[in-house]
Amino acid sequence: MAKVLTGAGLRGQSAGETALCTVGKAAAGLTYRGYDIDVLADKASFEEVAYLLLYGKLPNVSELQAYQQQLIALRPLPDALKAVLELVPKDAHPMDVMRTGCSFLGNLEPELTLAEQQTAADRLVATLPAMVLYWYRFSHHGVRIDTHHPDIPSLAGHFLAMLHDEEPDPLHVQVMNASLILYAEHEFNASTFTARVCASTLSDMHSCITGGIGSLRGPLHGGANEAAMDMIEPWKTPDEAEAALLQKLTNKEKIMGFGHAIYSERDPRNDIIKKWSEKLSESVGDPYLYDVSERCEAVMWREKKLFCNADFFHASAYRFMRIPTKLFTPIFVCSRVTGWAAHVMEQRANNRIIRPSADYTGPDHAEWIKLEDRP
Amino acid sequence: MAKVLTGAGLRGQSAGETALCTVGKAAAGLTYRGYDIDVLADKASFEEVAYLLLYGKLPNVSELQAYQQQLIALRPLPDALKAVLELVPKDAHPMDVMRTGCSFLGNLEPELTLAEQQTAADRLVATLPAMVLYWYRFSHHGVRIDTHHPDIPSLAGHFLAMLHDEEPDPLHVQVMNASLILYAEHEFNASTFTARVCASTLSDMHSCITGGIGSLRGPLHGGANEAAMDMIEPWKTPDEAEAALLQKLTNKEKIMGFGHAIYSERDPRNDIIKKWSEKLSESVGDPYLYDVSERCEAVMWREKKLFCNADFFHASAYRFMRIPTKLFTPIFVCSRVTGWAAHVMEQRANNRIIRPSADYTGPDHAEWIKLEDRP
Repeated sequence: MAKVLTGAGLRGQSAGETALCTVGKAAAGLTYRGYDIDVLADKASFEEVAYLLLYGKLPNVSELQAYQQQLIALRPLPDALKAVLELVPKDAHPMDVMRTGCSFLGNLEPELTLAEQQTAADRLVATLPAMVLYWYRFSHHGVRIDTHHPDIPSLAGHFLAMLHDEEPDPLHVQVMNASLILYAEHEFNASTFTARVCASTLSDMHSCITGGIGSLRGPLHGGANEAAMDMIEPWKTPDEAEAALLQKLTNKEKIMGFGHAIYSERDPRNDIIKKWSEKLSESVGDPYLYDVSERCEAVMWREKKLFCNADFFHASAYRFMRIPTKLFTPIFVCSRVTGWAAHVMEQRANNRIIRPSADYTGPDHAEWIKLEDRP
Repeated sequence: MAKVLTGAGLRGQSAGETALCTVGKAAAGLTYRGYDIDVLADKASFEEVAYLLLYGKLPNVSELQAYQQQLIALRPLPDALKAVLELVPKDAHPMDVMRTGCSFLGNLEPELTLAEQQTAADRLVATLPAMVLYWYRFSHHGVRIDTHHPDIPSLAGHFLAMLHDEEPDPLHVQVMNASLILYAEHEFNASTFTARVCASTLSDMHSCITGGIGSLRGPLHGGANEAAMDMIEPWKTPDEAEAALLQKLTNKEKIMGFGHAIYSERDPRNDIIKKWSEKLSESVGDPYLYDVSERCEAVMWREKKLFCNADFFHASAYRFMRIPTKLFTPIFVCSRVTGWAAHVMEQRANNRIIRPSADYTGPDHAEWIKLEDRP
C-alpha cells in the first residue's frame, strides 16, 4: 500500500542519500562536501569547487593546475555543434538552446562507459558557457566568436570575455567566480532530482544534464533572478521602488527573489552576493540600482518577514557586469552542471531505479463503447 | 526530519495522484483511464488511445476523424530540424537523436502558454517517428525521406512506410498499432516521473518530453526488447536456445525481457504481443525465431518462475516486420510520448514543485586548507 502524500511534491521525504551537500542546517547553512559556502565563496576558485564536487576533494596545486588546463583544452566547440547553434532562431529561449546544445553534444561525443563519466562532465562544464554564448553572439550580433581563449584561465573570465569580446575586468571575474560557486550545488532540488531520476535508469551523462537543464528552465526553479531584474529595472529611486512594491503586495502579486522552500531564517548566499553587488555598484558608479535593491530587501522584511534569497542581489550584480537578463539562468546552468554531474555519479555508485507509486484517482472500470455509439 | 528510505528508489512511496493509469491491480492488470489494456489493444486504434490519454475520453466519430487529420497535418518536419538531423552521425544512439530532435523543435516552436499544451503534445506525437526515421534513412541509406505521407492515415502505418519506403502490409500496421497501444502509458515509471518532476517547475512541454526520452534511454528502463533481440538472435533452434539460456542462468547473467518491478503474476501486455508475434511468424514463414522465443519463455518459467514482460515477444514481432533492433526503443518513445504528455498536463493541473529531501552521508564539517598546504 503506497503512502499517501497527495500533491506534496515529496516535501520532506527522503529520496536517497548524498554526501555532496547540506541545505538549511541550523535553518540557514549551506555546505558542499562539508565546506561552508561562506568559506568557499571567499577563498576558492570555481574550478576548485567544481573539482571538489566532481572529484571528491579539494585539489592540490598540481591537480588544480592540471584541471584548469584540461578545462581550457576542452572549451572549443565541434563544428557540427556550432552549425546546430546557428540554426537556432534569435528569439529562442536561451535555456532551450543549452538543453539542445547539451543533447546534441551527446550525439557527437557519447559517454559510452562509466569510465568516461568524469571526462563527459568536464567537457560539459567547459563547453556550456560557449554553447549559449556562441548562439547568443551569432544570433544577436552576427558574429562567430572564438570559444577557446586559452589565455583566460578561469571559467568566470571565459564567460565574460566571450560575452563582451574584451579582456574581462578583474573585479567582474571575481564576482562571477563567487556567483558560480554560490549556484554550484543545492542538494535534491528539482533539476538535480531530475538528473538523478534519469541517472537511475543508467542513462548517459548527456541525458541527465539535458534533463536538469529542462527542469531548471521552469519559472518555479531557475529564472527568479531574471524575474527580480524585470521587476526592479523600471524603478529609478528607492522611494519609487517602495511604493511600487507595496502596491504589488497589496495586489498579492508574487515577488520573486524572496523566501525559500528550505531555508527558514536566511539564505546564506544572499550576504555574499549582496556584498559583491555593492562593490560593483560603487565600481560602475551606479546611481540607483543597488539602493533600489536594498530598499526592496528592507520592505519585504518589514512587511512580510521574507528575506532575500540567492537570486535577488544576483540581478543587480549581473546587470552591473552588463549581462543581459536572458543570460541569467544560463549562468546558473554553467555553474549547476557541476552539482548535477556529481549527483549523477553519486546515484550511479549506489543505484536503484527511482520509480515511485501514485495514488489513483481515476475511474475503477470504464466500459468500452463502440466508436459509432459514442456521444 | 526526513523519512529514511535509503537507496529505495522511492519504491512504494506515492509521489502524487494520477487518473491516467493503474499498473498491477490484482497483480496483473493494466488500465488507461479505467479501460482495460486487453480491450484497448483489441479494439482501439493508437490514435484513439492517444486521444483518450491526452484529451481525457474516447473520441466520437467526428472527433477521431478531426484528430487523425490533425496528426497527419502535423507530420512534416521543419527544414531547420531536418538540417540538424543531417548533422547527427550515423553511429549516434537513436535515443540521443530523438532527445535532440525533440529539444530542437522546442527552439523553433516553443510552447509559450498553457493554452498551447495540447498542440505541443500533438505535434510531438506526429513528428517523433519522422525525427528518428529521417535521421536513420539519411545517415544509413543516404536518402532524404518524405515525412508527410498524407495518404497513410495511421501513425503505425506512417512509421512503417517511412522505414521501408513501401506501402505497409496491413497485418504489420495492425501489429504496430497494438504495440503502440501497449507501450503508451505505465503510471509513474522512471521516464514518466522524470517528465513530471520537470513539469513541476512549470517548465515547457519540450523540456519534459526531452527529459522523458533521456530517462527511457537507460538500459534499466527502455532497451529491454533490444537486449532480448540481441540475446535470441544467434539461436537457430529451440534446443540451442534452451542450452544457451541455461548456461546464462548458471553464469548468473541478467536475462532481459522477463519479470517486472510491479507486476507479480504476469505482464498483461505479454499475451497480446505474443499472439501477434505468432501471427507474424506464420505470415512471414519464420523458420525458428518464434519457436526459440516460446522455448525461452518456458525455460524461464520452469527454472526461475519468471514470466515474459511486454518486451520479450516485442523483439521477435519487430524483427518479423524487418525493424532494425536499434529502432525498438525509439518506437517506445513514439508511443509513450502520449503518456508522458498526459502526465505533464495532469501535473500542471494540480502542481507542487517536486523537491524531495536527502539523507546526508558526508562529513559534518570540513576545514579549509590553503591550496599550497594540501596533500
